[in-house]
Amino acid sequence: MQYLAVRAAIHIAAVLAIQLSAAMLIPAAVDLYYGHDDWPVFAISAFFTGGLALAVAMATQGRAPAISSRFGFLVVNLLWVTAWMVGAVPLLASSLRLDLAEIAFEAASAITATGGTVIVGLDDLAPGVLLWRSILQWIGGLGVIAMGLFILPFLNIGGFSYLRLESTDISERPFDRFSTFSIGLFSIYGALTLACCIAYMLAGMPPFDALNHALTTISTAGFSTHDASMGFYADNPAVLWVGTVFMFIGALPFSILILFVVRGRLDAIRDPQIRVFAGYVLVFVLAVAIYLRIVQGWPFLDALTHAAFNFVSIITTTGYVSDDYGLWGPFVVAAAFIATFLGGCSGSTTGGIKAYRFLILFELMANGLRRLVYPSMVLPVRYGDRPVEDDLQRAVVLYISSLVVIWAIVTMLLAASGLDLVTAASGSAASLTNVGPGLGPIVGPAGTFAPLPDFAKWVLALAMLLGRLEILTVLVIFTPLFWRR
Amino acid sequence: MQYLAVRAAIHIAAVLAIQLSAAMLIPAAVDLYYGHDDWPVFAISAFFTGGLALAVAMATQGRAPAISSRFGFLVVNLLWVTAWMVGAVPLLASSLRLDLAEIAFEAASAITATGGTVIVGLDDLAPGVLLWRSILQWIGGLGVIAMGLFILPFLNIGGFSYLRLESTDISERPFDRFSTFSIGLFSIYGALTLACCIAYMLAGMPPFDALNHALTTISTAGFSTHDASMGFYADNPAVLWVGTVFMFIGALPFSILILFVVRGRLDAIRDPQIRVFAGYVLVFVLAVAIYLRIVQGWPFLDALTHAAFNFVSIITTTGYVSDDYGLWGPFVVAAAFIATFLGGCSGSTTGGIKAYRFLILFELMANGLRRLVYPSMVLPVRYGDRPVEDDLQRAVVLYISSLVVIWAIVTMLLAASGLDLVTAASGSAASLTNVGPGLGPIVGPAGTFAPLPDFAKWVLALAMLLGRLEILTVLVIFTPLFWRR
Repeated sequence: MQYLAVRAAIHIAAVLAIQLSAAMLIPAAVDLYYGHDDWPVFAISAFFTGGLALAVAMATQGRAPAISSRFGFLVVNLLWVTAWMVGAVPLLASSLRLDLAEIAFEAASAITATGGTVIVGLDDLAPGVLLWRSILQWIGGLGVIAMGLFILPFLNIGGFSYLRLESTDISERPFDRFSTFSIGLFSIYGALTLACCIAYMLAGMPPFDALNHALTTISTAGFSTHDASMGFYADNPAVLWVGTVFMFIGALPFSILILFVVRGRLDAIRDPQIRVFAGYVLVFVLAVAIYLRIVQGWPFLDALTHAAFNFVSIITTTGYVSDDYGLWGPFVVAAAFIATFLGGCSGSTTGGIKAYRFLILFELMANGLRRLVYPSMVLPVRYGDRPVEDDLQRAVVLYISSLVVIWAIVTMLLAASGLDLVTAASGSAASLTNVGPGLGPIVGPAGTFAPLPDFAKWVLALAMLLGRLEILTVLVIFTPLFWRR
Repeated sequence: MQYLAVRAAIHIAAVLAIQLSAAMLIPAAVDLYYGHDDWPVFAISAFFTGGLALAVAMATQGRAPAISSRFGFLVVNLLWVTAWMVGAVPLLASSLRLDLAEIAFEAASAITATGGTVIVGLDDLAPGVLLWRSILQWIGGLGVIAMGLFILPFLNIGGFSYLRLESTDISERPFDRFSTFSIGLFSIYGALTLACCIAYMLAGMPPFDALNHALTTISTAGFSTHDASMGFYADNPAVLWVGTVFMFIGALPFSILILFVVRGRLDAIRDPQIRVFAGYVLVFVLAVAIYLRIVQGWPFLDALTHAAFNFVSIITTTGYVSDDYGLWGPFVVAAAFIATFLGGCSGSTTGGIKAYRFLILFELMANGLRRLVYPSMVLPVRYGDRPVEDDLQRAVVLYISSLVVIWAIVTMLLAASGLDLVTAASGSAASLTNVGPGLGPIVGPAGTFAPLPDFAKWVLALAMLLGRLEILTVLVIFTPLFWRR
């Protein structure tokens, strides 16, 4: 790793820190408007963080380094760690009175768009803090999409990049394309958030609640302004269905929406991962709804509404809950645990394994079985009608293996800090996949992460960051090869 | 699939059934000796099963089919299903009064050398039934080794075959080699069982207990003659250490012992999977022993003895327990859950993922990470100083993926039948890996599988068979390609 590259990476991170500091002025203004004492916290945080970031940015200005995979990995890691730390500053200074482990957890859950919380008493919290949490998740969600569309595919980690696939179209002007796509992404993400906010208001949410929930729905992030999460609106099916629809949209590949807006083309909708994603969502929602109807005797429409809301929430790694599904019977609990690992599409705001990886994995498995019968058979691995490169096949296996191994390690670390198996295994999974709530009475749908020991909070904060960076991006940094000159 | 192949496979299975029927005469003799009423059950079962098998064997005699992978898969599946059904006959007819689901479970647990039981009141059971259970496990263990050494490697499923690797030595006379190795295997397996039996007696076990436990120790199977399993001897550290040592030996690749006896060579001991296996055994045993010392305040020697016995038992997929480790604290519970998946070496009596697959998986992961940094780097996947063929790499990924997917499905099926998450997830894992006991109050170390609903018992019986057949062997049968002419 060269000095030039490290300096340039720090510079990029400092620019992000300046932008995040500027974003702190929004909650400052809101607290001022509502006449809450916390507004100077945000103003002062913005001033000092922004100042420091500006100084670092100026000190690290200079010649751009050669673009390489290593530089890409370094920048991505540094950006998320910076956002985590800058996001934590106002929480540290606010009236929340959280200790350091709690702030590390809450800021990680915010910026990684995970959604688990250590704060009890959200309903009475200052509006500025609530909005700051929501804004961080919204920015985090945008960051995830941008990373998934523009960076990870070039590092051979993410899924297919439509930019990359389309390179024959406009290969002469890559930066034109990049900026067109960035503007497209930002507009669509913003427009969807606005649409979601209006839909929530029409369904009966007060404006402030609607704004906060819109910010954390479209980012499939899951922070709420109520301790009961969306359980606060459990008796309003319209709100739950608005949430279900927009969480589902947030889990779709944004590349498709961008291509539609930028080019007016909708052919990418045939992307096979969408069918896989919609398929497993349907299977889980229907299985749970039917179970609730037959075994628990719920009215079918109620069962469908709550099954759809909570399982779309889990599968899209959002983390809202409308009810304590830990009490819906053992099948629902097991299904929730398995669903925690699924995720949405690549190029979306979701975490977890994601539909395209399942598609490639099952294709690999089917081919493997055929080759056991006829060892000499040569079969291509396909993604729709397109062959999957070796690099991508390897990355899929590598990601899933790493996820399972790290899940096992994090589970044992949490258990060593005194947590029971269900809490440890589900908390570890829900953090690594950026879902948020786990299972059991402590971290389950009716609980919070507040009662956990400090050690567990730190472990989970790091697990959320690890998950958000698709694990491999972080592991790469720890190979000796990475740091060789 | 040809008619000829199906007929020949049935013939081979019928020959096995004749041998198993003959084995029923041993418990018949023992029950007669102890003056127990059950002896005619075994004699009559032997007569009718043996007669039917003889008829089938004669009816299916004929020309040998061409040797192919498909024929191999068919034979292996048929052999295990036959052994399962023949093994169940005396249980069905005995004084046990079990229903069909219970017999399906118990016979599967016996022949697959798993070790979970649905029988409560083992201490008062007829000696013939106890011995039949132990003999089935011993035969099952022998079958696993034979399958792992002689068949699976040629189907590209198992690990390395030393027979295959050594083919340059005596490639002119493959059947000489096969018969030398078979005799070698049988002698060593028998000699180790005898040594284990004598060691148990010297440690203070009565002869009948020593014989039964020797049969189920060396086969890393885990049936006991006491409801408390080895907890009956919890105060006798000599017995526990004898068990620990012989379970560990049962988990080593038998090819090494065969090569030593047949050729007087010990160089295969450098097989790298042995180091990996010994490594993770050491890590788990020490971590648990230290946890018991520090967190629970046990005397260190007690902690070490019980940690070694129970975790060697789990990791080698034996399934004995010396104490209810479900009460040893959350870390031990989580560690036991993870350890359930590990397994021993290829060519041993153990189930689970096994050390050689971990070795290859970690090699694949390390290479994958390096290639993310330098995409153009070409790195061979190595097993010790030997390159790993593509076929084997693929089979490792295929096996682990299939295990995880099927574990998730079995867990949800069990949960749908009303079992809580810990019982469902651990019971499913412990059956698929042929460990035996799971976790939680029902199927945990202090429980049995008796209280489970019939549906769950059937699911787990099939899971044990699936696990024993290394999953892929069964999945292959369900591909349409397999049955094409």
